[in-house]
Amino acid sequence: MGEPLRFISFEGPEGSGKSTQAGRLAAWLRARGASVTLTREPGGTLLGQEIRSWLLHREEPMGEEAEFLLYSADRAEHLRTIVRPALAEGAFVISDRFVDSSYAYQGYGRGLDLDWLRAVSAGILRGVLPSLTFLLDLPPERGLARLAGRDRLEGESLEFHRRVREGYRSLARSEPERFVVLDAELPADELENRITREVISRWPSLSGS
Amino acid sequence: MGEPLRFISFEGPEGSGKSTQAGRLAAWLRARGASVTLTREPGGTLLGQEIRSWLLHREEPMGEEAEFLLYSADRAEHLRTIVRPALAEGAFVISDRFVDSSYAYQGYGRGLDLDWLRAVSAGILRGVLPSLTFLLDLPPERGLARLAGRDRLEGESLEFHRRVREGYRSLARSEPERFVVLDAELPADELENRITREVISRWPSLSGS
Repeated sequence: MGEPLRFISFEGPEGSGKSTQAGRLAAWLRARGASVTLTREPGGTLLGQEIRSWLLHREEPMGEEAEFLLYSADRAEHLRTIVRPALAEGAFVISDRFVDSSYAYQGYGRGLDLDWLRAVSAGILRGVLPSLTFLLDLPPERGLARLAGRDRLEGESLEFHRRVREGYRSLARSEPERFVVLDAELPADELENRITREVISRWPSLSGS
Repeated sequence: MGEPLRFISFEGPEGSGKSTQAGRLAAWLRARGASVTLTREPGGTLLGQEIRSWLLHREEPMGEEAEFLLYSADRAEHLRTIVRPALAEGAFVISDRFVDSSYAYQGYGRGLDLDWLRAVSAGILRGVLPSLTFLLDLPPERGLARLAGRDRLEGESLEFHRRVREGYRSLARSEPERFVVLDAELPADELENRITREVISRWPSLSGS
């Protein structure tokens, strides 16, 4: 076929507008007749909802390794029950966060060894990776200001969020073919335009339908 | 010091009597004045109790990778909150199941890649492994007969339990210094005798107190 894998992820901090843009892209693709599965991590699966609820609202502190392994367990189920079946049916899969979130938050943010994170992830992904990842880049000060205390990630230090941002940018530099970095402070319509133009450039058949 | 790490695990199938022997060894050590932490996997931690309840009583099928990652998340918390602190205080830690259970059940039993299991585990253990592991070996037919429908592992095929048993024996052969293989059908008192003799041979100071 030669067509890239129909798997697109959105990455970036809370408050960057990635859920909005993921939803807009799904609607845009559906309007062109494409089948779309819009999903997210954590929380796209039943197990994921349990894990999400633990991780975001827990009272007890949890170790970094366990946190990462829970996100990874959710990812394994997400791939098994949602992502792989949808791709097999020819749908576009749009995921609000995917494995790069672990590299950015647990790796760069919390300082877990990236080689270990990649080794763990390799056994889960088994080659399935988004062919296109939009990074909605935003200075941490601005992202936090756009939120209203939604979850515990917000309770992390500014320094943590700075490491996450630099991590994301470093990931994007290391895979320039896959990542498209966008300024999250652009107007939502302008972002949507840039995103759909990028999608058309990778799946040209979408422009004609 | 030269003394082996005071970390002892018990492995074997359900119905092999390992919980009984772990409890007896704890009592025997305490009677000699040793400080002992008796624990188990999954379920030694708060997170572990949740995970144990999910894994053993779930209605939905779960993928093998996710199952292993949940056990691993429990293990990470178990090490962080129970095993490492107790060892640091000089206590003996006796664990009813530890990482070898994952190799035997998820690796040999379910067919997950052992190299991947070891890579994931390496980042959790960071060098902390039992110095002594008792494998209570039992033909699967006998172990199942000794149980009365306690949990879902029992619902697995006999073939699965045969692979687990062979996996355990293979692990024991590959680390003959760490593993002591015992016939689980010996009388409980005889097993306890063999176990305490082995413990004395590794920690000779226990015989004198």
